Amino acid sequence: MEYKFSERVKSLKPSAIREMLKNSSDPNYIPFAAGNPSEEAFPLEEIKEISARILCENPITALQYSVTEGYKPLIEYLKTFMKEKYNIGNEDDELIITSGAQQVMNLATKSLCNEGDTIICEAPSFIGSLNSFRSYKVNLCGVPLENDGINLTILENSLRNNLNVKFIYTIPNFQNPSGVTMSLEKRKAIYSLAKKYNVLILEDNPYGDLRFTGENLPSIKSFDTDGRVIYAGSFSKILSPGLRVGWCVANKNLTPRMVVCKQTEDVHTNIFAQMVAYEFLTKYDFNKHIERLQEIYRKRATFAMDLIDKYLVPYGIKYNRVEGGLFILCDIPKTITAIDFCKKAMEKNVGIVPGNNFLVNAEDICYDFRLNYSTPSYEQLEKGIKLLGETAKEVL
Amino acid sequence: MEYKFSERVKSLKPSAIREMLKNSSDPNYIPFAAGNPSEEAFPLEEIKEISARILCENPITALQYSVTEGYKPLIEYLKTFMKEKYNIGNEDDELIITSGAQQVMNLATKSLCNEGDTIICEAPSFIGSLNSFRSYKVNLCGVPLENDGINLTILENSLRNNLNVKFIYTIPNFQNPSGVTMSLEKRKAIYSLAKKYNVLILEDNPYGDLRFTGENLPSIKSFDTDGRVIYAGSFSKILSPGLRVGWCVANKNLTPRMVVCKQTEDVHTNIFAQMVAYEFLTKYDFNKHIERLQEIYRKRATFAMDLIDKYLVPYGIKYNRVEGGLFILCDIPKTITAIDFCKKAMEKNVGIVPGNNFLVNAEDICYDFRLNYSTPSYEQLEKGIKLLGETAKEVL
Repeated sequence: MEYKFSERVKSLKPSAIREMLKNSSDPNYIPFAAGNPSEEAFPLEEIKEISARILCENPITALQYSVTEGYKPLIEYLKTFMKEKYNIGNEDDELIITSGAQQVMNLATKSLCNEGDTIICEAPSFIGSLNSFRSYKVNLCGVPLENDGINLTILENSLRNNLNVKFIYTIPNFQNPSGVTMSLEKRKAIYSLAKKYNVLILEDNPYGDLRFTGENLPSIKSFDTDGRVIYAGSFSKILSPGLRVGWCVANKNLTPRMVVCKQTEDVHTNIFAQMVAYEFLTKYDFNKHIERLQEIYRKRATFAMDLIDKYLVPYGIKYNRVEGGLFILCDIPKTITAIDFCKKAMEKNVGIVPGNNFLVNAEDICYDFRLNYSTPSYEQLEKGIKLLGETAKEVL
Repeated sequence: MEYKFSERVKSLKPSAIREMLKNSSDPNYIPFAAGNPSEEAFPLEEIKEISARILCENPITALQYSVTEGYKPLIEYLKTFMKEKYNIGNEDDELIITSGAQQVMNLATKSLCNEGDTIICEAPSFIGSLNSFRSYKVNLCGVPLENDGINLTILENSLRNNLNVKFIYTIPNFQNPSGVTMSLEKRKAIYSLAKKYNVLILEDNPYGDLRFTGENLPSIKSFDTDGRVIYAGSFSKILSPGLRVGWCVANKNLTPRMVVCKQTEDVHTNIFAQMVAYEFLTKYDFNKHIERLQEIYRKRATFAMDLIDKYLVPYGIKYNRVEGGLFILCDIPKTITAIDFCKKAMEKNVGIVPGNNFLVNAEDICYDFRLNYSTPSYEQLEKGIKLLGETAKEVL
């Protein structure tokens, strides 16, 4: 039979990156396209010990149905932890557990946006979130990103000129794909603008703990006095993405609606995984673990940037040195589009993502590509960036 | 600030049952309201062994990002298994892994239904699915359920009189909440009607393996020659609900859209849990495990029905003997509504669910309640049904 799909999904395309990953089983393929945490970042022994202990001491809780809000001890611990460490959350806020931070984007949109409402996002921005927004038939409005965060003038124009803006979506730390971190001034300004135009902010912070140089900046949620910021946290980059555990801190008048939506989607998040996260946070030295991760990514990023300096910069490719996160965005001279450059790189078995995938309109011509330095081995980093240099030599 | 919620969630209420469960921590509370598998049904030793082995042999796969479609070995195994054991799936079908069967309902609706389209469901039906449908602002049309399944005359009238019917939602085996199993004739008839009116069928089969008496009937999907049936399977009742792993068998032109939607919701299902399911299916005697479960539920159901005969039937409460699944629907004489009866039972600390919760319009007056016999202990079953008898004595 012929299927008639819903209007909302007709235009929705699979993530180009995830599609790329599916075809990346060739052992010679060099994986700069993914956003996987480094394999050496997983606390394998700890997770082994924790899993065995949970299944020994508390197996029924780990295997039985649970409540939609999340595993109570994890919720309570994270609330205190987020408050004490980051000043996130106050007495009017609630914390719920989600199936990865991706589900926060989904639940926020589902709860708040009617079809045709507007969401303002950074341009470029994380394709997974953009697709989540698109899947509710909202109007996406991209505001250019600068080296210190979103362009405030264009943001204000967008707030003024779009009808029914529901929220501004931002990744303030080591943004995906740009690697950009929003300055303190802009964090304050974006909050003021949200207040002035009475819209919400969806603050997505999967990489915040992965700062390996420079000073931590306060989250936008930490300024929030009137329940305007929905904060999304994730264990994917600091523990394990396969476990699919994230969380959301938002006003307690907002979270119950998100919980009702979550019930209709997956009932609750895998409870065993929530217990693993809780045990890891409480029974091990989490700060030391984070320091270890920062060291892993500092080394990798430095290694990658030195190679870029050596092999790509001579051909006019530019980038900003990153202070954390997993990605570097490289600007290529405007003699070849990002898509064509990435195709050429793919011919050499190097997977990088053309920047247009991160735009509201993926058909826009674009001259940058995203390079991930957490997934490949050091050997692959060296070989891959050399090959990108050869690509540049050929086409630039 | 004041929040403006989306139209689609404004009318959405949290599941009355899940809300009830949250307040059920009183040790004297008797849990007949849930739908939890019996604790003795979990293969604890096997899951312990499997988990340790996965984290020893293949930890990175278990903790890293994975593909949205699901864990490849599990997909391949389930495809063969479903085909060989149940004649489900043909060369035009694909199988994808979901975060519980609940996500199948969500993805099918999201992919296929525009706001205002119609979904036809059994009345009564599973509240979790109804809420998932409601969350996309579809028009729900309930068709009365008889002892052998949906009323075909009313079904055909509904197909004729509703605009844009996208699918018929049915739980053919040991339906939740009614316990009803659809006859073979009706299974064939519903498929013919779907064909005649060119609509799809969403066949939800979480309880099919839990038949403890009588003969298995073929699934509607097993008749499907033109990709008209979306089949939802689940590990929740046969392995563990806490793991949140289900699957969907549907035409391969349909599943890619569901996969794109899944990407926007939770990226992929917890991969460790998928590996546990795979190892359990392949390294242990699954048929023997299912026989053990059937024995567990046969004993429990028989015990519960004998008590109902003794304590409730004398007061005019009626029910149909069940042949599988987890639920018994009890009809009370029309001198008191189900809601009032359940409130009276709750005063005695017995949690049962009034039938109106399973209707399209939960405000409808209703004279039945759902009793679950898998969650409580035998002691609680005895004590609780006695207390329901006392309630009946007082109010009927």
